[in-house]
Parts: sequence; C-alpha cells; structure tokens
Amino acid sequence: MRYELYYWPAIQGRGEFVRLALAEAGADYVEVGRERGREAVEKFFARKREPHPPYAPPALKAGNRVIGQTANILAFIGARHGLAPKDGAGALWAHQLQLTIADMVTHIHDTHHPLSGRLYYEQQKAAAKRRTADFWGYRVPKFMGYFEHVIALSGGPHLLGKRLSYVDLSLFQIVEGLRYAFPKRMKRFEKRIPRVIALHDRVAKRPRIAAYLASKRRIPFSQFGIYRYFKELDR
Amino acid sequence: MRYELYYWPAIQGRGEFVRLALAEAGADYVEVGRERGREAVEKFFARKREPHPPYAPPALKAGNRVIGQTANILAFIGARHGLAPKDGAGALWAHQLQLTIADMVTHIHDTHHPLSGRLYYEQQKAAAKRRTADFWGYRVPKFMGYFEHVIALSGGPHLLGKRLSYVDLSLFQIVEGLRYAFPKRMKRFEKRIPRVIALHDRVAKRPRIAAYLASKRRIPFSQFGIYRYFKELDR
Repeated sequence: MRYELYYWPAIQGRGEFVRLALAEAGADYVEVGRERGREAVEKFFARKREPHPPYAPPALKAGNRVIGQTANILAFIGARHGLAPKDGAGALWAHQLQLTIADMVTHIHDTHHPLSGRLYYEQQKAAAKRRTADFWGYRVPKFMGYFEHVIALSGGPHLLGKRLSYVDLSLFQIVEGLRYAFPKRMKRFEKRIPRVIALHDRVAKRPRIAAYLASKRRIPFSQFGIYRYFKELDR
Repeated sequence: MRYELYYWPAIQGRGEFVRLALAEAGADYVEVGRERGREAVEKFFARKREPHPPYAPPALKAGNRVIGQTANILAFIGARHGLAPKDGAGALWAHQLQLTIADMVTHIHDTHHPLSGRLYYEQQKAAAKRRTADFWGYRVPKFMGYFEHVIALSGGPHLLGKRLSYVDLSLFQIVEGLRYAFPKRMKRFEKRIPRVIALHDRVAKRPRIAAYLASKRRIPFSQFGIYRYFKELDR
C-alpha cells in the first residue's frame, strides 16, 4: 500500500518526524504537498466529510484511514513496520517517550514565537529572548537529562535498548534541529549528554537514513520551521 | 487492583483528566499526593531505577507498571474500563482527539505564563495579554470549532457518537476551566459551540461524575493550576 503524507511542502516541521520513520521503514509513500502543492494540503484539511478529521498537519492516509497527530502517526507506523515494541506495555512506553519529545518540540517552537504564531519574530523579540533563557536554563537540561537517563537505564545504545524505534529517529531530529537553531549553545551543551549524541550519530549512519538525508527528499532547515536561527538567541 | 495516582495534591492541573476518567470508571485508586503529601510525589519522580520513568506528573501506577503522559494514561484506562473503542482504529481516533486536547491545554496554560513557568505572572503580564489575545482570537475558535465539528460528524451526543469515551470527560474539563479562567469571554463564546456545551452538561449529570464533582475529591479551581483568573485577561 502506498501511504499519502499531507504536510507543508517547504519545511521540515513536525512532518519530518513522520518522514524519518517512513524512510527508515522503507515505506512507499507520496508527499502530497510536494507533488501537488500547498493548496492540496489545505484542501485535504478543509474536507468537511472526513469521518476522522485531523486537526492540523501532518496527517497520514493509509488506504481509507486518515491519521493525525504526529505521535499518533508514529505509533501507527511503528506498529506496522517494526519500529516499536510489539507488546502493549512496550508500545505504550515508546509512545510515552514520543509524547515527551512532542512537548519538547512545542517548547522549541515557542522560543522564537512565544506570543503568537501569527506575529513576526521581530514583533516578539524581547519575549523570545526571555523564553529562550528559560528554555536553555531549565527545559533543555531537564528534557535532555531525561533522555540521557532513559538510554542509560535501557543499557543503550537506543532509548529502548538494543533495538531501534521510531523514538530514536525523533530524538536524532531534535539534536539536528537544536544544532541548527542554537549552534553555540548546543556545542557547549552536548558534552553533558554523551549517550544522546552517540545515539544521534548512530541513527545518522543507518543506511536508509543516510540515503534519505543525502537526498532531495530531505528539505533543508530554514527560517520557517520549528527550528530557526537568530544570533541574539544563541549566545 | 488498586491504582496509585501520582500528582500534586492541591491542584486540578493535568491530573484532573485522569481523576475524571478514574471516577467515571468507578476504579479503585489512591491519590498518593493527597494521602502522603507532595514530597511522596517528588520522591516517586526522583526514583532512579524505575525502568519506565515518567517525565513529569501525572503518573499512574497499575501493579508493577508505571505510566506517564496524561493522554497515554487515559488510553490505558480507556482500554481497561470501557471508556474507549475496543477496535484499533477507534482507539487511535479517540487518542488523536485527546492529543489535540493536550495541545489546547498547553495553550491555555501559556496564556498566563507565556515566557516561563518559573517567573511570576506579574513578571510576564504584558506578554500574557498578547498571548491571550492570540488564544481567544485564533486558538479557541479553531480548537472549539473543531470539536463542535467532530460531534456533528459523529452524530453526537458524544465526540465519538452514542458512547461516552474518556475524551468527552476531558472536553468537559476544558469547558469548566475556561469558564473559571475567562468567565466573560466564555459566556460570549459558548453560543458558538452548542454541541460542545450540551456534551459538557451531559457529562456533568452522569451519576459518577456528579458524585465526584460534589465530593471533596474534586479540588477547587485556584490560581495555581492550568486555568487562572486574571481580570485584565478576561475582557
């Protein structure tokens, strides 16, 4: 079956977590936004009769099923493509970690847009500085310290132990994004999370992920996604 | 089996979504924070050897299992106590709605604390006003319009149709909280979401929920939770 991914065509955004999972799974899928344009994505989300309407991109269409919410899509892909534990307790634990990653993603986005996604960064620059100070002073150490601890607990090298799961791909993406948005801060911080960085490097070398990252399917980081670089936020 | 709920003893917060589901399920549970104090909750989250450590409260202990992340806990309770569809696609859809509610909860919290949870409201009052304007101008209509649409699609009276699910209990709680934090704004807005309000009223009358709300188990709203009332934010 050929999946359809509905996400914005020009950004990594939350869709990237799904793209990485589909790439690692070797799944056949079409990126509707990139093939048919942004309007096709908007039209899909405006459909009034879809019985399980997703709230916002990304959404995945699998046959007749439409699935929304990034973490939910990953749980679905993980179960189908061997990227999550098969037992109920293990699958729930993987999903729990993914929900914690989702919380971190919201915090990352809000460093540059703490007041409104409809205002420009320049209109909320002072607030962004304060939110970023909180993010690096408190949130990053707590989130990343947590993931470091989880890898240590499982015995590594992955979050769940010996086997890779979709959560590892998402944590890889978090590290990539923080390096783009906060290169100086991240360079200093990485020493404190050796297991997370080793996991990141291991994911980057997986053949399907390496091929994906080197391909045109990987959209470059930009100033329009979750991760944005502003010199004044990266001391 | 007796569940243990680990959450802060003095606030509704995110724990309230779990409490409502446990109440409707008629489940036997102990509130560790309320029986043994806040320190018992902190101690639980500081345990270094828990194999599936939750990131932050709430957490539910079910026998040997420890489950974190509110939406994940609800998926677990829902499956065990008939508060969610039994089939995989239906369960995933219910969970997807719950994740959208979780997103809305974060937005509600950030209306009064857009910059940092470690600063007082007074230190971020100007930012809170701007974030609240965005929340009511854009987020509330979109989120609530979505839930209104989902109830219409399912045929009602619940989000999933004839049968109640844990998501209905959470949507009830969102309405309650918005009424507490933004009484004037909410009074004006409610006319636009008749199905959501009818669902709220229906949930409030369920015997177990009504008994719970009238009991001391229901902690009152306060200025320390997700929903806080500030006159200047409620025009």
